[in-house]
Amino acid sequence: MTPLTTTFYALGLGPGDPDLMTVRARDVLQRVPTLFAPVRQAGGRSYALGIISGLIDASRQHVETLPFPAPAVGWCEHVDRMVAALVHGDVAFLTEGDPLLYSTFIGVLCELRSRYPDVPVCIVPGVASPMAAASAAALPLADDDQRLAVLPAMYALDALPDTLQRFDTVVLLKVAPVLDAVLDCLERAKLAEHILHVRRVGRPGQTILSGLDRVRFAPPEVKADYLSLLIVKRRESLVPQ
Amino acid sequence: MTPLTTTFYALGLGPGDPDLMTVRARDVLQRVPTLFAPVRQAGGRSYALGIISGLIDASRQHVETLPFPAPAVGWCEHVDRMVAALVHGDVAFLTEGDPLLYSTFIGVLCELRSRYPDVPVCIVPGVASPMAAASAAALPLADDDQRLAVLPAMYALDALPDTLQRFDTVVLLKVAPVLDAVLDCLERAKLAEHILHVRRVGRPGQTILSGLDRVRFAPPEVKADYLSLLIVKRRESLVPQ
Repeated sequence: MTPLTTTFYALGLGPGDPDLMTVRARDVLQRVPTLFAPVRQAGGRSYALGIISGLIDASRQHVETLPFPAPAVGWCEHVDRMVAALVHGDVAFLTEGDPLLYSTFIGVLCELRSRYPDVPVCIVPGVASPMAAASAAALPLADDDQRLAVLPAMYALDALPDTLQRFDTVVLLKVAPVLDAVLDCLERAKLAEHILHVRRVGRPGQTILSGLDRVRFAPPEVKADYLSLLIVKRRESLVPQ
Repeated sequence: MTPLTTTFYALGLGPGDPDLMTVRARDVLQRVPTLFAPVRQAGGRSYALGIISGLIDASRQHVETLPFPAPAVGWCEHVDRMVAALVHGDVAFLTEGDPLLYSTFIGVLCELRSRYPDVPVCIVPGVASPMAAASAAALPLADDDQRLAVLPAMYALDALPDTLQRFDTVVLLKVAPVLDAVLDCLERAKLAEHILHVRRVGRPGQTILSGLDRVRFAPPEVKADYLSLLIVKRRESLVPQ
């Protein structure tokens, strides 16, 4: 039986700097006896765990990584395992950024809702990477009547020219695998000067590059980094320093 | 002369619940000697100040509201006044949500950059209202190949049908003044069941309504609230509880 007096928390940890998590996320993660962090493959490193490594008390908290591969094979057992841990107290599932924006937690939530509808779920939002990148670069995302689009770059190539016509700011997430094709598209759209590339915002290795050429001729480890995004502004805007 | 050893902070306070501000924002706001909060008219109440009211020490911190009307008449003097306060130490400018997403700070940043380019500016991002609303309702914003659009509702009416065709999730901010027209549009697009209305997320008076009819027949004070937004999902999605 699921103990209904304990809660399944999803914690958005923000972009990577521990100080950019919310007060609530930090309080919950330091209080709960059991924490789970997703990894892409068994034995892999968890980005979320890297964010909180200095905040956990190993003497009284159990931290476990669970591989969440795509496609979602085996997620059921992971959810079973996490729900079973509720017998020891509240459980926290960790995600970088925000739990409901391109996060593993979305799949977990679907499983929870369909198979454990009585488990109380509490979702703590986090600073999402587009906002964190904009702040690091002092680049406004949108103001007044402006429109903002957020697209996963890999699936957005066909739609990109049209989106750039209709939106003032376009954020392309996980841009690395298609970066060169995206840059070609932006060059054709004459937006070479309106590009900001942010990698590993708030983490060691953070880089901020503005302008098409600087991005195109950046070192391979910068261009290929999974944790990078591109902000494209249609109108004239503040140039980051 | 501006003392360059002090910093002008922009603090994103998140949606309204003091626990949803970042650890950094809370640390800075409890440390700086001078804080400024925007209001829409002289003598008006500051939403941002309401968020932090329990966190300020009046014996050593000076808090001041400044009216930032639209259009931006008189903003110059406000920026002069805030920069002058840097002589006493760091200054914090408060904004609800995120400082670079539809925030008064964007205009302030433009003034700072053009007239005080040597003043060090540090922007602390915050949880934006779309993420906070999604978490409160346990409604995923976007996952996998999905696309997210964020539009100020007042300027988006014409573009709405087209945007609903191209994006999986559309967030309409500041929806109150055009709510009935938006609902009509969503009804024509056969999206009556895919609507979530969130008002005052994380604050006293928070309401979450799903489905077109519940929103249409909500009490006037809910429908007319300035701090409300609409999340529209094109595809089938989790229904909030």
